[in-house]
Amino acid sequence: MGEGMRDRALRVMEECACIAEMSEEPGRITRLYLTPPMHSVHEYLRDRMEMLGMRVRVDAAGNLRGLWEPRGYRQQRLVIGSHLDTVPNAGAYDGVLGVVIALEWIVLAQEMSLSIPIEVIGFSEEEGVRYGVPFLGSTAVAGCFDRRLLDLRDRDGKSLEQAIRDFGLDPGAIDQAKIDNDVIGFVEVHIEQGPELEEGDLGVAAVTDIVGQTRGTLTFTGHANHAGTTPMHHRRDALAAAAEWISIVEDIALRTEALVATVGRVFIQPNAVNVIPSVVEVSLDCRHADDSIRSLAVGELITRGRDIASRRGIATDWSVLANHPAVPMDRQLTALMVDAMSAAGLAAKTMTSGAGHDAMVMARRVPATMLFLRSPGGISHDPCESVLVEDIEASLHVARKFLERLASSVG
Amino acid sequence: MGEGMRDRALRVMEECACIAEMSEEPGRITRLYLTPPMHSVHEYLRDRMEMLGMRVRVDAAGNLRGLWEPRGYRQQRLVIGSHLDTVPNAGAYDGVLGVVIALEWIVLAQEMSLSIPIEVIGFSEEEGVRYGVPFLGSTAVAGCFDRRLLDLRDRDGKSLEQAIRDFGLDPGAIDQAKIDNDVIGFVEVHIEQGPELEEGDLGVAAVTDIVGQTRGTLTFTGHANHAGTTPMHHRRDALAAAAEWISIVEDIALRTEALVATVGRVFIQPNAVNVIPSVVEVSLDCRHADDSIRSLAVGELITRGRDIASRRGIATDWSVLANHPAVPMDRQLTALMVDAMSAAGLAAKTMTSGAGHDAMVMARRVPATMLFLRSPGGISHDPCESVLVEDIEASLHVARKFLERLASSVG
Repeated sequence: MGEGMRDRALRVMEECACIAEMSEEPGRITRLYLTPPMHSVHEYLRDRMEMLGMRVRVDAAGNLRGLWEPRGYRQQRLVIGSHLDTVPNAGAYDGVLGVVIALEWIVLAQEMSLSIPIEVIGFSEEEGVRYGVPFLGSTAVAGCFDRRLLDLRDRDGKSLEQAIRDFGLDPGAIDQAKIDNDVIGFVEVHIEQGPELEEGDLGVAAVTDIVGQTRGTLTFTGHANHAGTTPMHHRRDALAAAAEWISIVEDIALRTEALVATVGRVFIQPNAVNVIPSVVEVSLDCRHADDSIRSLAVGELITRGRDIASRRGIATDWSVLANHPAVPMDRQLTALMVDAMSAAGLAAKTMTSGAGHDAMVMARRVPATMLFLRSPGGISHDPCESVLVEDIEASLHVARKFLERLASSVG
Repeated sequence: MGEGMRDRALRVMEECACIAEMSEEPGRITRLYLTPPMHSVHEYLRDRMEMLGMRVRVDAAGNLRGLWEPRGYRQQRLVIGSHLDTVPNAGAYDGVLGVVIALEWIVLAQEMSLSIPIEVIGFSEEEGVRYGVPFLGSTAVAGCFDRRLLDLRDRDGKSLEQAIRDFGLDPGAIDQAKIDNDVIGFVEVHIEQGPELEEGDLGVAAVTDIVGQTRGTLTFTGHANHAGTTPMHHRRDALAAAAEWISIVEDIALRTEALVATVGRVFIQPNAVNVIPSVVEVSLDCRHADDSIRSLAVGELITRGRDIASRRGIATDWSVLANHPAVPMDRQLTALMVDAMSAAGLAAKTMTSGAGHDAMVMARRVPATMLFLRSPGGISHDPCESVLVEDIEASLHVARKFLERLASSVG
């Protein structure tokens, strides 16, 4: 059956390293949406795809799409993919790994003489760095692209519409990026970007859900005053109130199974050493796979914030920035993945994704699932991001078993 | 004995209102060190002083100095003053009130045929806004001016040396601003800038001490990580640690009589909604009239900060920005002030100043004391800053009694 899985895994790592060189910044991996290095990545992967006998195009949203169609096929196709853009100063695997591995799925399918067509998508945009809106690529493929987004401007003032045109594409054709109905499902392979697999000494996991998320800002408004002449009992200190609340956010998250709640951003007025803070804006990012648990936690946090403020004679204002429900992965497709893991001799590990992924967007349109690979140290969005060659190897064993099972289930 | 005290108090308020018009910004009171409106104030007060028979000069640090010498006097002189600069968007009384009232002390002294000479100083710089260093005026008068300060640059890049020259003064002559030894003492009349007098329903107080102050920064260094994929128990959240500490700062200050401790400034890295904060710098401003109580409190706070950090597996670093001991006012001169208050039929109220004042600097060189006037609402450094005409009137009654007592004590 040709080369061994270890060789293929090593090839995947080499290709990720090779693509990492295609960057906007020397010595750092930074590849935003529709930038010149994205052209290089497309050229590189187009060669690979064409050598595998795939038909290749770039759709109007900038997604690279390669289609392999077995001779005389009759089935709907499987779609596999992940994203090709990165955050600034990124690692080499977030996104790219899932596209490069997808090509190994093609190799496996060809070796197995699979009769199911496979489309590989390298999504153009997932991180949301250039235009502040994530998932632009998968949103176009899922057919939910809002054309008003074309007016968005990047930091240099260039509109999304113009950027698409400058990349050699036609913004008027974005609707044609929408995927048709001849699809069995979507699979995304991605690094975990968290510590859960490493802590469990496991290499891969099937993803059952992507968490729901609330983002908002709680603003405490007290009174600025002189730090020397204002006695403690006379203060309306917005930061002292905010600090009390930040501790409660952590406490409630620690006491609620599988909830994460983070205060990552704080703005303080006037932010001077010798002035009691008058206004403090505190961000909240709260996530859970169960929307009702998340809503309950956010509700309690807002109530506790108001209690703190009213006890201190200061005002609060809660403003919601985003409220995304949890997205379950397709039950059947995920069961198939778990089954494939067992058949490959691996633990039948399932987990919730704490981060959003293209699979979450694709799930609006087609059955979707994900396979996570361990992130050593839980590190991602960092040059130290890594992946273990044995985990890629394991994922390819899972891929073969998955394709076998898929073939027999749709055969 | 001429006009009534009420009329004089009203005149003081009118003059403060008049000087408030001399501003760098239309509609707001902003008068930094050595700016054009400071020239206007000097002209205005020079006229007033000369009409009172005073000899007027502006020293090389930009302090306005008027000297009244009674015919055939033999005593050392009394010095009275406060500052003429303001914070941006200031009130009309912080500093200026003490200079304008000092001229009424001259009127009283003349009416009483006092044989003690009096020098009135309108200090050029107390707030430290333009060059980031406060008390430049009084430091020059006290003879502690560090000539290296001449190299300081303001926001426009202009050196202090050049600003002095541009104001028409000779930076080489700053040493000559130093006051001679023929001084009985220094008195500063100033608004309280806090709520203590108002809460006690009192109009004036003698100041016994100016608090000592520690300013520093406690830096918590944890690990940045993904807010969605990093479980709570796996975090090294620098902000959660800082929040816990900010609550302890408030708690220790509330439990320590007359201590004030403030966290006014916080810097967070990376300060993004969906990233666990890696580095948080927290300022501390801690004040007390008793240096040992302040040192003990700061020591406990640093220890508690380290405990929080070590329990969370993160690092701390304490860096001291300033450590000023408390400055007691001159015991005899303050006793004379308290005695004068009683003689004027007022409560013998004494208090600690929570803010620094020129009197603190002058105390290095001559016996110094202060008289505080109630600040309605405790408000200062704000356009709403105010003062009650009856409190000015009361302060002038105290002034007369003070001068009477001073004359008999040195006569």
